[in-house]
Amino acid sequence: MSVATMSREAPPRVWTQRHLLGLEDLSRQEIEMVLDSAENFVTTGRERRKKRTDLAGKVMVNLFFEPSTRTRTSFSLAARRLSADTLDFTPSSSSLSKGESFIDTAKNIEAMGVDVMVVRHSTPGAPHLLAKNLGCNVINAGDGAHEHPTQGLLDIFTIRRHKKKIEGLTVGLVGDIAHSRVARSNIHGLLKLGAKVIVCGPPTLVPQSITQLGVEVSHRLDDIMPRCDVINMLRIQFERQRSGLFPSISEYARLFRVDGERLQRARPEVLLLAPGPINRGVEVTPDVADGQHSAILQQVTNGLAVRMAVLCLLCGQAEPQV
Amino acid sequence: MSVATMSREAPPRVWTQRHLLGLEDLSRQEIEMVLDSAENFVTTGRERRKKRTDLAGKVMVNLFFEPSTRTRTSFSLAARRLSADTLDFTPSSSSLSKGESFIDTAKNIEAMGVDVMVVRHSTPGAPHLLAKNLGCNVINAGDGAHEHPTQGLLDIFTIRRHKKKIEGLTVGLVGDIAHSRVARSNIHGLLKLGAKVIVCGPPTLVPQSITQLGVEVSHRLDDIMPRCDVINMLRIQFERQRSGLFPSISEYARLFRVDGERLQRARPEVLLLAPGPINRGVEVTPDVADGQHSAILQQVTNGLAVRMAVLCLLCGQAEPQV
Amino acid sequence: MSVATMSREAPPRVWTQRHLLGLEDLSRQEIEMVLDSAENFVTTGRERRKKRTDLAGKVMVNLFFEPSTRTRTSFSLAARRLSADTLDFTPSSSSLSKGESFIDTAKNIEAMGVDVMVVRHSTPGAPHLLAKNLGCNVINAGDGAHEHPTQGLLDIFTIRRHKKKIEGLTVGLVGDIAHSRVARSNIHGLLKLGAKVIVCGPPTLVPQSITQLGVEVSHRLDDIMPRCDVINMLRIQFERQRSGLFPSISEYARLFRVDGERLQRARPEVLLLAPGPINRGVEVTPDVADGQHSAILQQVTNGLAVRMAVLCLLCGQAEPQV
Repeated sequence: MSVATMSREAPPRVWTQRHLLGLEDLSRQEIEMVLDSAENFVTTGRERRKKRTDLAGKVMVNLFFEPSTRTRTSFSLAARRLSADTLDFTPSSSSLSKGESFIDTAKNIEAMGVDVMVVRHSTPGAPHLLAKNLGCNVINAGDGAHEHPTQGLLDIFTIRRHKKKIEGLTVGLVGDIAHSRVARSNIHGLLKLGAKVIVCGPPTLVPQSITQLGVEVSHRLDDIMPRCDVINMLRIQFERQRSGLFPSISEYARLFRVDGERLQRARPEVLLLAPGPINRGVEVTPDVADGQHSAILQQVTNGLAVRMAVLCLLCGQAEPQV
Repeated sequence: MSVATMSREAPPRVWTQRHLLGLEDLSRQEIEMVLDSAENFVTTGRERRKKRTDLAGKVMVNLFFEPSTRTRTSFSLAARRLSADTLDFTPSSSSLSKGESFIDTAKNIEAMGVDVMVVRHSTPGAPHLLAKNLGCNVINAGDGAHEHPTQGLLDIFTIRRHKKKIEGLTVGLVGDIAHSRVARSNIHGLLKLGAKVIVCGPPTLVPQSITQLGVEVSHRLDDIMPRCDVINMLRIQFERQRSGLFPSISEYARLFRVDGERLQRARPEVLLLAPGPINRGVEVTPDVADGQHSAILQQVTNGLAVRMAVLCLLCGQAEPQV
Repeated sequence: MSVATMSREAPPRVWTQRHLLGLEDLSRQEIEMVLDSAENFVTTGRERRKKRTDLAGKVMVNLFFEPSTRTRTSFSLAARRLSADTLDFTPSSSSLSKGESFIDTAKNIEAMGVDVMVVRHSTPGAPHLLAKNLGCNVINAGDGAHEHPTQGLLDIFTIRRHKKKIEGLTVGLVGDIAHSRVARSNIHGLLKLGAKVIVCGPPTLVPQSITQLGVEVSHRLDDIMPRCDVINMLRIQFERQRSGLFPSISEYARLFRVDGERLQRARPEVLLLAPGPINRGVEVTPDVADGQHSAILQQVTNGLAVRMAVLCLLCGQAEPQV
């Protein structure tokens, strides 16, 4: 479904959001605008990439209060391919303890002429606080266990590129649902686009209350395997083990790892996603991770396209109409 | 006073400095050249910023031996808005202890094709040493308690934008004068432009010898409050407390903090500056920092314009005349 | 010997390498192609550098598993002068211990749209492993004690610019030959171009087996001094001392340091190189390092030109023929 086709079928859509804080806040139409726009930015690996000038003269800042290499880098490369300048701020806890508040730090950075601020913070709602207090565009790059909207969008974008649709698909999210902002963004986005979502993991990592979002809960991967068009394998944080939330890595792997045997129970066209970095042998075995069903590296590539789309939509919004 | 007006009144001015090491070394005319040039680079927050090409093909390096995020970032963004490439060197003490000298390190960096080196070092005079030994342009971004000329220039620029002049103004510098390179650069610049400067703080932090520079000394903020057109609130380094230079934070705040009550003693049009990051509640209360008299965030924005002006003036100088 | 002249004398040469892993893998003709190409990128310090657009839209990543400022920076500046975007990944051991393998890390980075990966790793052969597993161009920026081809190329390039030839020259490599990837790359490159190579250092740091590469071994610098057209003084790693490989710094300096007295035994036109950072007083005395025979800073400048040449040759190769 191309952008052109869409425009002919539906009334012209207008993007009005100044910030991207979560998929919970977006309408189905807005999510589809991002996905359609991202199609324009997809390039295959060996194809010559042309530098675009959409964001020439703009400045995007990564303000990451939690360490991250992938997401930060993906945003930087997306911005630069649009000719924006980029800058990384990774405040140490000490610099904040210098007496300057979170909002002061952000306001000071903004005052240097920043157009887009990409924020990661361990506190849910931190990007929303900045959105209320700053004049620039704010993108949530992960706030605690709340949302990580661009990861959700790139997962959904990858599914749509493979399956040509989202509506009517059954998507299994496997792993630590309780602590996963990726899970929440996937759930909100997928449900809005008409997919069925099953969350699956050990009872300690899948709160029963999550059914309130509209998802089905399962604790047996073998049961849901035959029903899913897509399996998204969430990363296990080993530090959860220490807090007693699951007995052992090998126990987890035995029950929830996608391996060759388990894959035989899946639908023939099943698509496997993982918002890396994966723990090979834990969430998925190497043969499956590198196999024909896996779109793990495509997710990384698609992440660029989705973030370019988000940057263009938000920045277009902030500027006065010419 | 516009640039055009200036040119008609005065003979054409020519910039001849290859380095910016301190405001003590600049003439009144040279300081005014920077300020006039900076006017061209001021943009308001929401205005579309055009990328300029003044420094295309040039390389600016931040060589910071003391940690800094703001000043370093401000220089980087200023340079990139002029299309220069930028690079950060933050030598760890270990790398220098590898046996390579300070000048060797700088010469090696310069040999990679660097045009402008921005240096911060804890030793007063370190940038001057580089200026003597390198062929590129050198900018002092803070040398011990000696000078921090671009901070001085951006403070003065912010005052001039608000007050339309410097001559005849009374400016109060409040806080730790003894250890402040910002104070020294402000003092040199303001005096050259014809302002009266009063330095104010606890006797332990305001050496009596500072009167030799031509400033008045006060130890009571309440006394000078009604006389000042501008109050510049210097940042308190909490580590000074450990060395016994002032009794306690609360004691300092009681005597030298600008709060709503103290502000009532000030002139109605008083302008409040602070070369951040501020300690809210220590040098200034939040209501005043965010109030109508405060130009704290404008200083940050103006810092970009002033640094762009400095970079253009210095780089124009280093090139052979075409 | 200009490129034009070469083309008339020899049949047209075609670059076919997709990676630069070591000088051992290159033919004499290929090495000369790099050197000839680098001539186009040499600029003197004060000459106006024009930004080239050869690599516009390309992304070069530094993936450095060992700390490095110089080499990393030199690659970055070379790439940017060709209008490529650059990115630094300096994986901490912790991030790799998160369970992601070396190849997974590289594949994920590549998936973000990377064209050239510059790799430094303590394990010999690590860049070769990436070259086998990735689609992008790979440049070895140092793999253990194996090779550091761009350093070898820039050393040879600097010699050729001074001596107008390599064939027939006698080059002494002095210092810790056993642990030096720089030595190995120099040896391979110089021998292919027809130079005679003498390696010289304490017996503990010069393995007798190195003669298998085709070099002469000496343990007395005074003996080879009069025979060498070029002396390349390798950096001493002080940590070797702890492992008992040489008795003391002063002992080393007494026997192998190039100082004014020892220089008198050298040929009048001897050229002195050192792949910095030098330990002043250990491998070379300050007067000699800064003297007329030294090309130490020129090496740094030439490193940019050589790396620009390598990037252009490799990237031209990866692209489909237009």
